[in-house]
Amino acid sequence: MYCADQKGIIATVTNFIHQQQGNITYIDQYVDRPNGAFFMRVACDLNGDKFDLDKFKKGFNEKIGNRFSLHCDFYLKSQKPKMAVFVSKYDHCLYDILAKQQSGELAAEIPFILSNHPDLEIIAKRFEIPFYHIPVTKETKAAAEEKQLELLKKHGVDFIVLARYMQIVSPKLIDHYTNKIVNIHHSFLPAFPGAKPYHSAYDRGVKIIGATSHYVTAELDAGPIIEQDISRVTHLNSIADFIEKGRDLERIVLLRALKLHVLRKVMVYGNKTVVFS
Amino acid sequence: MYCADQKGIIATVTNFIHQQQGNITYIDQYVDRPNGAFFMRVACDLNGDKFDLDKFKKGFNEKIGNRFSLHCDFYLKSQKPKMAVFVSKYDHCLYDILAKQQSGELAAEIPFILSNHPDLEIIAKRFEIPFYHIPVTKETKAAAEEKQLELLKKHGVDFIVLARYMQIVSPKLIDHYTNKIVNIHHSFLPAFPGAKPYHSAYDRGVKIIGATSHYVTAELDAGPIIEQDISRVTHLNSIADFIEKGRDLERIVLLRALKLHVLRKVMVYGNKTVVFS
Amino acid sequence: MYCADQKGIIATVTNFIHQQQGNITYIDQYVDRPNGAFFMRVACDLNGDKFDLDKFKKGFNEKIGNRFSLHCDFYLKSQKPKMAVFVSKYDHCLYDILAKQQSGELAAEIPFILSNHPDLEIIAKRFEIPFYHIPVTKETKAAAEEKQLELLKKHGVDFIVLARYMQIVSPKLIDHYTNKIVNIHHSFLPAFPGAKPYHSAYDRGVKIIGATSHYVTAELDAGPIIEQDISRVTHLNSIADFIEKGRDLERIVLLRALKLHVLRKVMVYGNKTVVFS
Amino acid sequence: MYCADQKGIIATVTNFIHQQQGNITYIDQYVDRPNGAFFMRVACDLNGDKFDLDKFKKGFNEKIGNRFSLHCDFYLKSQKPKMAVFVSKYDHCLYDILAKQQSGELAAEIPFILSNHPDLEIIAKRFEIPFYHIPVTKETKAAAEEKQLELLKKHGVDFIVLARYMQIVSPKLIDHYTNKIVNIHHSFLPAFPGAKPYHSAYDRGVKIIGATSHYVTAELDAGPIIEQDISRVTHLNSIADFIEKGRDLERIVLLRALKLHVLRKVMVYGNKTVVFS
Repeated sequence: MYCADQKGIIATVTNFIHQQQGNITYIDQYVDRPNGAFFMRVACDLNGDKFDLDKFKKGFNEKIGNRFSLHCDFYLKSQKPKMAVFVSKYDHCLYDILAKQQSGELAAEIPFILSNHPDLEIIAKRFEIPFYHIPVTKETKAAAEEKQLELLKKHGVDFIVLARYMQIVSPKLIDHYTNKIVNIHHSFLPAFPGAKPYHSAYDRGVKIIGATSHYVTAELDAGPIIEQDISRVTHLNSIADFIEKGRDLERIVLLRALKLHVLRKVMVYGNKTVVFS
Repeated sequence: MYCADQKGIIATVTNFIHQQQGNITYIDQYVDRPNGAFFMRVACDLNGDKFDLDKFKKGFNEKIGNRFSLHCDFYLKSQKPKMAVFVSKYDHCLYDILAKQQSGELAAEIPFILSNHPDLEIIAKRFEIPFYHIPVTKETKAAAEEKQLELLKKHGVDFIVLARYMQIVSPKLIDHYTNKIVNIHHSFLPAFPGAKPYHSAYDRGVKIIGATSHYVTAELDAGPIIEQDISRVTHLNSIADFIEKGRDLERIVLLRALKLHVLRKVMVYGNKTVVFS
Repeated sequence: MYCADQKGIIATVTNFIHQQQGNITYIDQYVDRPNGAFFMRVACDLNGDKFDLDKFKKGFNEKIGNRFSLHCDFYLKSQKPKMAVFVSKYDHCLYDILAKQQSGELAAEIPFILSNHPDLEIIAKRFEIPFYHIPVTKETKAAAEEKQLELLKKHGVDFIVLARYMQIVSPKLIDHYTNKIVNIHHSFLPAFPGAKPYHSAYDRGVKIIGATSHYVTAELDAGPIIEQDISRVTHLNSIADFIEKGRDLERIVLLRALKLHVLRKVMVYGNKTVVFS
Repeated sequence: MYCADQKGIIATVTNFIHQQQGNITYIDQYVDRPNGAFFMRVACDLNGDKFDLDKFKKGFNEKIGNRFSLHCDFYLKSQKPKMAVFVSKYDHCLYDILAKQQSGELAAEIPFILSNHPDLEIIAKRFEIPFYHIPVTKETKAAAEEKQLELLKKHGVDFIVLARYMQIVSPKLIDHYTNKIVNIHHSFLPAFPGAKPYHSAYDRGVKIIGATSHYVTAELDAGPIIEQDISRVTHLNSIADFIEKGRDLERIVLLRALKLHVLRKVMVYGNKTVVFS
């Protein structure tokens, strides 16, 4: 939840939960002083099976939300979000997502995998997940997007991961899934946005390459950053080496971002993220 | 502060501060579930010049502390702790401490530097800090400790940093400064405790060396760990290289630990530390 | 290749290759001065299809090898080593090995996967690799080892990876595959050898956990280290978190070690490794 | 040394050293295949006191240098380069340079420290190094540069380090010291060149900040990169925190670059560096 910073918010919220017989198991808060904004993430145990989320929400908003002009989201820990996976031809991020979802490390459901190429269907089959092949050309772009939106709606998808999906997603899709499309870009943004970042990094003679996971916004590779990491390179490394080292980075950074998103630990504010502990 | 985990602690504490016209600027809490222990660090703005810490403490303890059996420390942000620096012959950690204290990065006062060797007096002079040379031999050990305790008392020292002080400190000193003696050990503890850790690391053929800053306890190199970090080594590195790379590590890790201690962000619990954000 | 350090070795070897119309594409050398030992790895292009490795070896050994008492291995870059994968119940390292082998990042053939449990057969099937289930109990241990050796022989296996194989391999197997069994241990060796290292690390209150890939020797977790890496932890992390963070570490460290081994970049010397660039 | 890649270079060079009774103690070579360029760094023990560098050079160039069109630099290990230190008001890099030079970790002589501000003279005095205060304004810029060049010439300076010197150095100075002016820029180049990079990084919401040491060229912050490193930041960090974390990064990265330069391990090629092991 977030709101303008005011005296007494924490006391009021924790008090309310206390009165509802709730026990706070986690609290993390952050104040952006220059902008006078207040952010908080609270987790609590409430009275088990009989707990009524809607009633709790109503009570909270009546007593607190309206008074402080709080923007607040409520989640049940037991509710796994539904994640659609968009891919093209690269399989390394996909393998990692599927392996970790299957082992339970990534607590999301995957209703389907979607690609503009047929190549990775074999992997979807291996993991017994529906695969949709929706080719995208200049001419079919609009129609393809309609099909995508239909699928997303039909499956009740909560958020999308672009796991090296090599197409620019449309403003319409972004509008439907604002701050809910997680992308992995293979550079240390804001360095080397756009196409072929490893080639640019090689040409510049950098000693470190990076990968960045961010939410997709209308401006290419300029959305709120969720997570970044880096890897050392030397003059000995060719562009092929950059790409290979980068694959590991992309995997790791994307998965970290997905875990944070799935655990509802990321809050977008302006063009930045607050990532709770 | 810490206490046994109970319902309503956060609400009660934040409420109290709210009632005292305080504004919470920082709150971080942690529950050790297996042990049912609760830890919290709170920072707040209170009513400026007129604020009376003793009165606040009394009120807090009467209303809350006793009720929850809270162990609680109170600090004024403006109060810089007094840190004695113990060294022997190595100067790298000392230089870093002095440079950062002088630039204001390390918000501590340094009443004196103490050494069992005279070598580093020149550095103390450069920075205009009193230097005491107290040699330690088997025979003079007890007397030397008495002199140390006297100096510490006379200067009102709050905590001690062993900046590569090559002597084992006495149980008596540890008793006086429980969890208030910060040491830097030049290995990745618990690997390679004791003397010559770089030599042992070299002999074992490790690919990574480390440094560990911890509070000194009666058992050598076994106290609560505050901070650790590592550096890569290869077969190309000689023991001399290990030592040189290690110097950088020691500097960095010790300074990070000191900053955390000075900001009262470290809480010792059992033989572990809770390090607040 | 390695030998006692002597004047003129590099000149003699590079000269020989030059005389054979070879072009050196890579040379890396290392002298262990305290022990007077010399190590070198050389890669060269020789005259294509007509190249006769046996003849080259014979010529090399006659002219140089014997003279300098060189220990030398010769490999054709085109020859992929055969790697047997031993697993138990954990799938994270296995998934990573298979995904990277399939994408070509790990240039090895995998003749089979072997396990003392049947659980991961499904993954072997997904990737269409033969799977052998050889249970190991106190009573069947000797017989199981015979079966393993038979399989390894039959498939012409060059080296073995223990991808979280939860059994101690027998001295006999180690003798057959000296410095050719790559293990991943889930701690920063030499800290926390043996069972349950994450639990020990948690109890000690470390701020960094690690993983170590090493060659298996008769003494448990004491063989030559190939690669290590670490990950930060805090007081907030439970043992379950240690295990989860550790899974990523294990994957990454094991795969790096396997790539180095497959590229013949690791040379064992004493109980250490020389890892060429 | 570097030249166009040709067959037999390594053999020829190592042979020559062998014939001169030299023993190669280090050899590292690199071939930039796309550009057909060859680089090598060789260290060798030659016949002690009687060794005549000029004669050796002459012999080398006659027999090998000219034949292969080699560009080759010769250094005696005993010869410490002379390094001028340019600063403005920030003292953190300066302290580190002086502490490490004094301890022998940085094998350079420091004939003087130069600044456009008088603030750091006290540190120069502490370390007993001459300090020149040469203010720079729009009007005096040309005259100031003349004074700088004079000083550099007078003291026989081999290379310059800009240790947070907040002035753009003139093309004339760069011409005199091509690839011999080492700068530290407080961002992860090519991200955030120019002024106030920490502010820009904060505004972009990055999760990692960096520092880059590079040789100064005519184009601002675009010269060949020697070394880079990074540090994690979170939404909790203010711009002041970025600056503080950055100070540590700047220190570390600059010192690493200086050590590499002083050991003649950096070779510039195009707008990149080859950094030997």
